[in-house]
Amino acid sequence: MKVLVVNAGSSSVKFTLFAMDTETILAKGLVERVGTDHPNLIYKRPDGFKFEGEIQVSNHAGALKAICDKLVDPEVGVLKSLNEISACGHRVLHGGEKMTQPMLIDDSVKATIREYFPLGPLHNPANLSGIEACEQEIPGVPNVAVFDTQYHMTMEPDAFLYPLPYEYYKQHGIRKYGFHGTSHNYVMLATAKFLGIKPEETDIITCHLGNGCSMAAIRNGKVIDTTMGLTPLQGLMMGTRCGDIDPAAVIKLIELGNTPAEVDKIMNKKSGLFGVGGINSGDMRDMLAAADGGNEQAALAIRMFVRRIVQYIGSYYVLVNRPAALVFTGGIGEFSVVIRSKILDQLGALDIAVDAGKNAACFGKAGVISTDDSKWQAIVMPTDEELMIARYTKGLVK
Amino acid sequence: MKVLVVNAGSSSVKFTLFAMDTETILAKGLVERVGTDHPNLIYKRPDGFKFEGEIQVSNHAGALKAICDKLVDPEVGVLKSLNEISACGHRVLHGGEKMTQPMLIDDSVKATIREYFPLGPLHNPANLSGIEACEQEIPGVPNVAVFDTQYHMTMEPDAFLYPLPYEYYKQHGIRKYGFHGTSHNYVMLATAKFLGIKPEETDIITCHLGNGCSMAAIRNGKVIDTTMGLTPLQGLMMGTRCGDIDPAAVIKLIELGNTPAEVDKIMNKKSGLFGVGGINSGDMRDMLAAADGGNEQAALAIRMFVRRIVQYIGSYYVLVNRPAALVFTGGIGEFSVVIRSKILDQLGALDIAVDAGKNAACFGKAGVISTDDSKWQAIVMPTDEELMIARYTKGLVK
Repeated sequence: MKVLVVNAGSSSVKFTLFAMDTETILAKGLVERVGTDHPNLIYKRPDGFKFEGEIQVSNHAGALKAICDKLVDPEVGVLKSLNEISACGHRVLHGGEKMTQPMLIDDSVKATIREYFPLGPLHNPANLSGIEACEQEIPGVPNVAVFDTQYHMTMEPDAFLYPLPYEYYKQHGIRKYGFHGTSHNYVMLATAKFLGIKPEETDIITCHLGNGCSMAAIRNGKVIDTTMGLTPLQGLMMGTRCGDIDPAAVIKLIELGNTPAEVDKIMNKKSGLFGVGGINSGDMRDMLAAADGGNEQAALAIRMFVRRIVQYIGSYYVLVNRPAALVFTGGIGEFSVVIRSKILDQLGALDIAVDAGKNAACFGKAGVISTDDSKWQAIVMPTDEELMIARYTKGLVK
Repeated sequence: MKVLVVNAGSSSVKFTLFAMDTETILAKGLVERVGTDHPNLIYKRPDGFKFEGEIQVSNHAGALKAICDKLVDPEVGVLKSLNEISACGHRVLHGGEKMTQPMLIDDSVKATIREYFPLGPLHNPANLSGIEACEQEIPGVPNVAVFDTQYHMTMEPDAFLYPLPYEYYKQHGIRKYGFHGTSHNYVMLATAKFLGIKPEETDIITCHLGNGCSMAAIRNGKVIDTTMGLTPLQGLMMGTRCGDIDPAAVIKLIELGNTPAEVDKIMNKKSGLFGVGGINSGDMRDMLAAADGGNEQAALAIRMFVRRIVQYIGSYYVLVNRPAALVFTGGIGEFSVVIRSKILDQLGALDIAVDAGKNAACFGKAGVISTDDSKWQAIVMPTDEELMIARYTKGLVK
């Protein structure tokens, strides 16, 4: 059984083709700059073959057709025919409160994705375009939507409601939804397997630290709280996003002469590591290199980044009530030995400490990184959102 | 030595006259509705005498004169002459980064209070009017400013900076300042005395829970973090304030058709317990009564209120690194046995539990309320901001 996973953004279509019997990747890549004059296709096979070149497409359907053409290309393809694809799985940003699990796509599901355009104005329309492109280019093949919000939908009202006038929730859906759900879900399942416990008995804190950063408090395998909110802006400090600030600071930024749209852009694109570090980069690797070179401002940005994670770990330790593990994933979580170390060095009050040797050994691979005498475990667990989407897709169509 | 403590708000002047040898109150009260057609004076003595009546004043100076007239009134006064007042202590909201301790007021301090008008637009101008009223009505007597922000000024940059573009801090002072500082300071000192430890060795978490709510993480007697921010809106859920929400939710509220000023009002005056509870009150006593009567919405508002405190306790437990005590103060903190119980019931992961009998016994008075086998202590400690201001004032003028 082969599953094509599609992640359609506003100007890109990413894809991964899985052979599900072995859960291996047959091909992956993306079309970028969709909607510009110079769209570009990148197509890679696990044997190292790579094609990259400009293509002539004007929209998501065109991008998907170009991808399909490569997949069945007699020379570089990995399929004899598109008929070999059993299903397409789609990453959809926002499923609101209605989409609490992956859905086989029909008109009703598409209508719901459309209903949540206001909550995911940049992503949901693109995600829907990706679905419609598959319907057009790979006709007759079932499509499945996996929502970035769905895994968080087990939160109770006291966790997801904001202390705003209640009618803003009832009438406009203003509440905490949470994102990165597919990643937190995958990592929870992988951690349960790693620890040899049942998913429904898994009490952990997951830290997805990449360019975007979020954490989840997970009790009995279910999310009871998460750091992102109505949008992916809330919570931790990120590459270019501010995370938690005084809500009145938003008003202050407007009073200083910015429009609301400009403030939104400042908070999402110009803040975080980028905004504080002063090195014109929101990449943690650049920040660490600058700090190593004596850049005090970069060092401060890193301290701020770490501190906010540490604070949420304390918070979630209490909510989960003595979790079994603290799990790191995402680009920074999987690969930054030094950031993990800085975080764990501040968790003495929670009876956990880093084992320097074990930590250094876990570079992009699963493993325990806490000392043997820690009262709970710190773990690295690589995430795989595409595989999670592929598994859900397989589960729904087989 | 007698000290008059003055707290001038936009439409009120509160006062307390202390005899500092015994730290007892000689008289207290307020003029309210200053600037309206019907200002009202309330004047009380500790022996139970109370005067209340409309007066003819048009501004803060007039209000202070009315207060002074009562203080030296042959029939109901407590002073023979205003000369008996050794100094006046003033509560000032915002001292920015420059005012890190109480200040004997001179032109330079007044200029600084003025400089921070943009950061405390409602309070600082009124506070300055109160100071100038004292200079006018009680001439020759030194005035001292005690700032609501000053006790928090020991926070490090990684605690007080927001992950916004750095220039907003450098150019506009947008950072976390924290408020209720005089209360947290008083309570820290009182707790150190209560526990028999030195202030400079006091590691505690203080929870000031009133109509406004804030917490402070205190290590070695100094604030290392606090929940309020640029303004008193950030952090905990309060009577009518929302506290932490997704900053993008502020933009969303504007997109829904509200002006920034309206959103500011929604977040400060229509949110919190008031916004969620649905009983047209932001008072915790009303909320508890409604919940007891079966009102689910009120019960939800209370759960949200408690949850956010619990989360910050976890966060600050880690930052302080095993504090010696969790301290409750403020109207709710001192008097709400049930809210304290609900908070402590969720702190099992931190090895602390409530002793129901001790908790019930602490109604507005100091005492330990945790079980004997808790690994750290929960304490009730009544606050007294006016006395703290009077003590600082005495210290600076004697």
